[in-house]
Amino acid sequence: MVTNDDGVYAKGLNALVEVLHLFGDLLVVAPDSARSGTSHAITANLPIRLKMLQEGDGLAIYSCSGTPVDCVKLAFSQLCEDRKPDYVISGINHGANTSISVIYSGTMGAAIEGCVHAVPSVGFSLCDFSPEADFSRAKVAVARVFQELLENGLPLGVCLNVNIPKGEIKGIKLCRQAHGKWEEEFEARKDPHQRDYFWLTGNFKNYEPDNELTDEFALANGYVSSVPISIDMTAYQVFDSLNDWKIW
Amino acid sequence: MVTNDDGVYAKGLNALVEVLHLFGDLLVVAPDSARSGTSHAITANLPIRLKMLQEGDGLAIYSCSGTPVDCVKLAFSQLCEDRKPDYVISGINHGANTSISVIYSGTMGAAIEGCVHAVPSVGFSLCDFSPEADFSRAKVAVARVFQELLENGLPLGVCLNVNIPKGEIKGIKLCRQAHGKWEEEFEARKDPHQRDYFWLTGNFKNYEPDNELTDEFALANGYVSSVPISIDMTAYQVFDSLNDWKIW
Repeated sequence: MVTNDDGVYAKGLNALVEVLHLFGDLLVVAPDSARSGTSHAITANLPIRLKMLQEGDGLAIYSCSGTPVDCVKLAFSQLCEDRKPDYVISGINHGANTSISVIYSGTMGAAIEGCVHAVPSVGFSLCDFSPEADFSRAKVAVARVFQELLENGLPLGVCLNVNIPKGEIKGIKLCRQAHGKWEEEFEARKDPHQRDYFWLTGNFKNYEPDNELTDEFALANGYVSSVPISIDMTAYQVFDSLNDWKIW
Repeated sequence: MVTNDDGVYAKGLNALVEVLHLFGDLLVVAPDSARSGTSHAITANLPIRLKMLQEGDGLAIYSCSGTPVDCVKLAFSQLCEDRKPDYVISGINHGANTSISVIYSGTMGAAIEGCVHAVPSVGFSLCDFSPEADFSRAKVAVARVFQELLENGLPLGVCLNVNIPKGEIKGIKLCRQAHGKWEEEFEARKDPHQRDYFWLTGNFKNYEPDNELTDEFALANGYVSSVPISIDMTAYQVFDSLNDWKIW
């Protein structure tokens, strides 16, 4: 099963479909337009529409009025009665989803939802925001990672966040999420009636640019970054210190 | 700073404000209507509006057209030039946010965003979906947890997901996220023009109902559950096994 957050007509989705169709049958369910920054959102208060765009030759494509996570949920519960998807692959996103961006990313929201459904899942992103980005090198990287995924699978409860550099690719690294944050995040303007409004904007600040273990470092040096992401968000490492609290 | 995902007029937000105003000045920035299930979504493609509803006596209340995460971002970058919030507290949500629901929850999205801004942050939820839920016991639990938070703070990169049972409260437990999943998640209908549409629905399936370490177990036995949540989603525990992949 294939999805994304840039919408069913995005070039990156098409690139992903081209690669993965070489490996097997595909069910594509993707948003009918861009859903960037939708994270793990679900559509709780509106009905959701599905529209079949194409079917045949082992490739079915649906557009969906919901979020990327809705797309995954619909694929599993409505579109696959006899045969559940073996994998959920999301992307290729137009733009990076590194470091803390994993929690804002609709691309990764879908991959995490695939992981919740207990199938090996990966989100792919290219570090190029352009709608006309060149995905030719990225497609090779996707094929390499997916081939390895076919052979090894992934541990239960863990999916992969794969980011691909814009230029030449030196190799693929297993990384951890860099510590960082988006800063100065709004532009205040006045509308023609002198009322304030705000546009979300900002700059990413990497708190550890020299750390070789991080996704940001790998990408800055021309490598594809692969970060294993846990759907269990419990901070096990702080249980000892929190046990000192008097209220338990 | 106080926010929620049920909207600025929700009874649960009002209950939270009543408790926390006993401890200090409050800046409330909350969505102008319900934003359930918005997770960590941000508003990337629309302008965002803020409206001041009340100010004075150490209590400022704004409604916001964006998501809970937008509310936190706006509070820090636009509404607090001289004095950044010391804490971000989200809730009290009408309905549980236990187990895997932490990744769908707008309440927890806001708490996690507070944590990204490096201040101690907590999301509170009451296990009662009713708009008219009784928050009187929940307010006592909030005060107990917040008092402890004032004394101890939280480790950097970790926030708390606190769920409060509906009835009598036996105590407060430090827990981990239960392993579980939402199942059978859509209801298919036909509109008056015979076109299909879908409503998201479903039942929560707890994969380990007898595990005493989990949030679900604590709540089922009348205890408040407190799960420390990490903003670093890297699955460190699988690095050894993934190192066997040949592509690195």
